[in-house]
Amino acid sequence: MNDRILVAPTDLLGDGVFETVHLRPDGPWLLDRHLARLCRSASILGLPEPDLTPIRDRVFISTGALRIIYTRGLLDVSVSPFPETALRERRDGVRVLSADRGISVRRRPPWSISAAKSLSYAENFAARRWAARQGADDLIWLSTEGYVLEAPTASVVWLAGDELCTVPPDEADILPGITAAHLLSLAPSLGLRAAERMITLPELVAADAIWLSSSLRGLAEVTALDGTPRARSPWTGRLLAALGF
Amino acid sequence: MNDRILVAPTDLLGDGVFETVHLRPDGPWLLDRHLARLCRSASILGLPEPDLTPIRDRVFISTGALRIIYTRGLLDVSVSPFPETALRERRDGVRVLSADRGISVRRRPPWSISAAKSLSYAENFAARRWAARQGADDLIWLSTEGYVLEAPTASVVWLAGDELCTVPPDEADILPGITAAHLLSLAPSLGLRAAERMITLPELVAADAIWLSSSLRGLAEVTALDGTPRARSPWTGRLLAALGF
Repeated sequence: MNDRILVAPTDLLGDGVFETVHLRPDGPWLLDRHLARLCRSASILGLPEPDLTPIRDRVFISTGALRIIYTRGLLDVSVSPFPETALRERRDGVRVLSADRGISVRRRPPWSISAAKSLSYAENFAARRWAARQGADDLIWLSTEGYVLEAPTASVVWLAGDELCTVPPDEADILPGITAAHLLSLAPSLGLRAAERMITLPELVAADAIWLSSSLRGLAEVTALDGTPRARSPWTGRLLAALGF
Repeated sequence: MNDRILVAPTDLLGDGVFETVHLRPDGPWLLDRHLARLCRSASILGLPEPDLTPIRDRVFISTGALRIIYTRGLLDVSVSPFPETALRERRDGVRVLSADRGISVRRRPPWSISAAKSLSYAENFAARRWAARQGADDLIWLSTEGYVLEAPTASVVWLAGDELCTVPPDEADILPGITAAHLLSLAPSLGLRAAERMITLPELVAADAIWLSSSLRGLAEVTALDGTPRARSPWTGRLLAALGF
């Protein structure tokens, strides 16, 4: 059970930002990057820059999931147990569907908040419930032009030859994935090259391996895409080890 | 100051629904329709049907704005003072911009929650802030095909000859407006005909009068659209009177 917090009704209107951080025995993983993204998300939503010193200075004695929530009315930090689902999907992989999100990357509105990790997550949850009703674990969103975008709660990472890739967040107007960016920065140490590419679904299907990356799951290998099983990649274990999982 | 409520951090992720009702001296205006829409929104988000009997049975002694919030974790009812902005916009009208929302009415995703009044309102607020930065009071969203959809917190209503119109919510995949539907039901008593129509921006511009309709504002007449002033309509007062304002 999470801690309960006191809020104003207006704090419940999704008009804020959040981060989920993996609390490891040696501290919150990639905390500085999560706090930097929180500030960037806040700026996109027109929120004042938060004072994050108390979070930077805090010593966390437990492991699990650290959630930071920032709205016009509150800055809340809570710790919850590490979710079983994340452990299972990291170990067993995920069966994924692709689906048109109905949004064009070329016609993003000037007020777009797609690059922010906003609290308005109802569509993300609804999309995942839809995938679950089809018997899948998750989905990958495509733009109306057919470009691979992201998953509702994860980035898409793939390996094509010796190139470890993800989607360019600015060009695709998606959330910049912290785990994905960190993984790509480690590519040279693994004998791989890193690249950001706009790709279509057929190009993704042709990749040697596909993963969903996020802070808690780390990497969840895509073991089936649109109903077609995919062979497990020997790289999954190596990349997870490089990420410290 | 609103009442504060105790919530779990997960209640802050916009994964719930709400209604705002005009609290009048004779009770909450159109309460049954708002409660019916709350249930419909809840169903779209996969929430269990709420028990609304306590709200139906409650006697409200104050006037103002009644907000009902329903998530997986809570059902909250709060009353706040009637907002000054709503009074001013009802009296003075609104200067409005039109803007492509970047979403097609023909490619709505199967998990779409656009027809629900969800708590995930960050994009609605962001769009209104964008309009304010351009010196406007509000905006009207258009689909990528150029159809008039809705405003971030209101329906669009217009008069063309003796036809009082709004956008068909199902066809446009937008929130069904309670004030707009109620107004259209009163059309015959005002010597007007009611119609739901998918129209383009040029057709809207050619209308005799345009309003944004919502529970608290009632009707706010569009006094300028994309920078072009529009003459005030003699119908504004008549329609507001019919709505009991």
